Amino acid sequence: MHNFEYYTPTKVVFGKNTEAETGKLVKEQNCRKVLVHYGSGSVVRSGLLDRICRSLNAEGIQYVSLGGVVPNPRLSKVREGILLCRQEGVDFILAVGGGSVIDSAKAIGYGIANEGDVWDFYARKRTAYACLPIGAVLTIAAAGSEMSNSSVITNEEGFIKRGYSSNYSRCRFAVLNPELTYTLPDYQTQSGCVDIMMHTMERYLNHGTNMEITDGISEALLRTVMKSARLLRENPKNYEARAEVMWASSLSHNGLTGCGTDGGDWASHQLEHELGGMFDVAHGAGLAAVWGSWARYVYKECPDRFAKLAVKVLMVQEKGSVEETALAGIEAMEDFYRSIGMPTTLRELGVEPTDEQILELADKCSFGNTRTIGIVKKLSREDMARIYRNAKG
Amino acid sequence: MHNFEYYTPTKVVFGKNTEAETGKLVKEQNCRKVLVHYGSGSVVRSGLLDRICRSLNAEGIQYVSLGGVVPNPRLSKVREGILLCRQEGVDFILAVGGGSVIDSAKAIGYGIANEGDVWDFYARKRTAYACLPIGAVLTIAAAGSEMSNSSVITNEEGFIKRGYSSNYSRCRFAVLNPELTYTLPDYQTQSGCVDIMMHTMERYLNHGTNMEITDGISEALLRTVMKSARLLRENPKNYEARAEVMWASSLSHNGLTGCGTDGGDWASHQLEHELGGMFDVAHGAGLAAVWGSWARYVYKECPDRFAKLAVKVLMVQEKGSVEETALAGIEAMEDFYRSIGMPTTLRELGVEPTDEQILELADKCSFGNTRTIGIVKKLSREDMARIYRNAKG
Repeated sequence: MHNFEYYTPTKVVFGKNTEAETGKLVKEQNCRKVLVHYGSGSVVRSGLLDRICRSLNAEGIQYVSLGGVVPNPRLSKVREGILLCRQEGVDFILAVGGGSVIDSAKAIGYGIANEGDVWDFYARKRTAYACLPIGAVLTIAAAGSEMSNSSVITNEEGFIKRGYSSNYSRCRFAVLNPELTYTLPDYQTQSGCVDIMMHTMERYLNHGTNMEITDGISEALLRTVMKSARLLRENPKNYEARAEVMWASSLSHNGLTGCGTDGGDWASHQLEHELGGMFDVAHGAGLAAVWGSWARYVYKECPDRFAKLAVKVLMVQEKGSVEETALAGIEAMEDFYRSIGMPTTLRELGVEPTDEQILELADKCSFGNTRTIGIVKKLSREDMARIYRNAKG
Repeated sequence: MHNFEYYTPTKVVFGKNTEAETGKLVKEQNCRKVLVHYGSGSVVRSGLLDRICRSLNAEGIQYVSLGGVVPNPRLSKVREGILLCRQEGVDFILAVGGGSVIDSAKAIGYGIANEGDVWDFYARKRTAYACLPIGAVLTIAAAGSEMSNSSVITNEEGFIKRGYSSNYSRCRFAVLNPELTYTLPDYQTQSGCVDIMMHTMERYLNHGTNMEITDGISEALLRTVMKSARLLRENPKNYEARAEVMWASSLSHNGLTGCGTDGGDWASHQLEHELGGMFDVAHGAGLAAVWGSWARYVYKECPDRFAKLAVKVLMVQEKGSVEETALAGIEAMEDFYRSIGMPTTLRELGVEPTDEQILELADKCSFGNTRTIGIVKKLSREDMARIYRNAKG
């Protein structure tokens, strides 16, 4: 096992009606002025934004609002937020929404608290040394951004999707009311479940460096999300299932499932980021569509881990060899994805890239053939192209 | 499931040689002067204290030292620490040791940061509104104080052992190097394992309000600790087993295993506190000695939960009825305790209280017959006396 650092300072307030506490939580932060940041009209239509604003008013907190964040959140909106925050003297950002809104808030936070162009951090040209404090009221269980150190932004110039991680951006608080996710369309709910599972699987599938306690936690988390995802297909207002998934979203990406590991593989995420940047697909669905192709390409590098996933999470009976068990696990995971309406190929995702586009995806994903991705197996630009091609379906 | 708050701001730095980073971690706290607080001579003899001090010197950090904390840490030492910190202008406490040292540091922290007598908080007369910041270098995996909000102090006037919990006291950082626990005597190692398990079991055994993900995490934690405890009987220098136990100690009591529950039963802990106060026994061993008696007294209130523990953690085959399965689980847990050299009766603990002493224990534990304890079953003073009596062996 590896040495590790574990740092999850976010105060989580979880359960029914907890959004009513938002004003009080912001008040504790001793800020002068808040940016209320949100996405589409759904938080307006549902009345959530009104309730949040009433809660801020009740504590006498000054604020300005900025909506319009889209899935695969855009750099242009981040720049707009930075400008607004500077004009208004904002010193705290309240993100009301899912991972996209929180990620956009983090990027605005970096932009305000550091000099120079905010894209530099995502382009890995510079390191951020601060971030404006952020709080979140979560409406989609998926990205785990409410407790994680990471954010992902899409630059419309070239439609490049890039992540940046730093502890400075960890939310001060996160309000998690599972009821706020009742109205999500099933496709988004299930896409979220895949994303949550992938945050754990990226860390779980490695060369065997995990701690047993980390493995046990990860397996429990994966089993719970799978069961809950199925329950939510039948009844999207199942509170218990919504709650299990929402808490799993935070635990899956706050670092807990990575303790003692080598840091995670993340190749599937990086392969999907290019798909998301180019085709604007739902992140979790994109992950489901490439995962099988990636898994078949690499599983022989660590068949023991794939076999453990198969037995402990997917309830696969052990086969004659470890490799057979591992492969049966990959098939079982794809069966599960299909059972919850998720794609297991690019075609099912609604994306049919040309050969030229596949080469472009691989070129972008390898930063113009200057980096490899993955730890299970280091993947070159050519490997990436093969995985995209095998995923076509 | 219940609404919950989850707040674990402690930065954990885990693994080999991590104590060398102590100076740097203290430096991040921007303090003027540090109290280095420790227990017996073992941290001196092992050279750990020297290494810590070198690490502080390297960062130019001023400090004073105060050793002599004992297991079941004493109020008199806390008062000594408060006086010293006031004289020296200390504004950060570095605890080097196990739960007793960290708990003593927390009490000193309360004493400095609040007016009036520090015992008031433990006697539940007042609420603390602040605590001096604390960091920890852990040498015993057991109490979980390095990430928890709680501390337990023994007042020599009447030998009363009382706990106080508040988020203010959560450590800013915790340095967890499993190698530092290599030299612990087996009895202390195993006593620590029982304490860790009990922090999870106190939360697990309830009226069925848990989240599934919390249950799964708790079961994984318990299985891991049981396996590791057995491995450490054979080889106390098994790094992996030491690491699993050390990380479990933090996760067991930082709140993770209580998410969604009713807050935990804690009757076993409270019954043990009186034993610890009166007979100065090792905390974990005391818990093992009373647990079986408590469990048999209450399991019919929630046989499902006891049965789940039996099947998922103790690998008991399901019996004809839920109650039989539950009872078989209690027996299996006692078998496990015996297998790691832990007592399952007061006699095996080395304590043979007279009838008068049992009444005194129950009287103290019920605060002079003014409170009940427990959630699984609310226990009166008479119930407590019966449980102590049944535990005699």
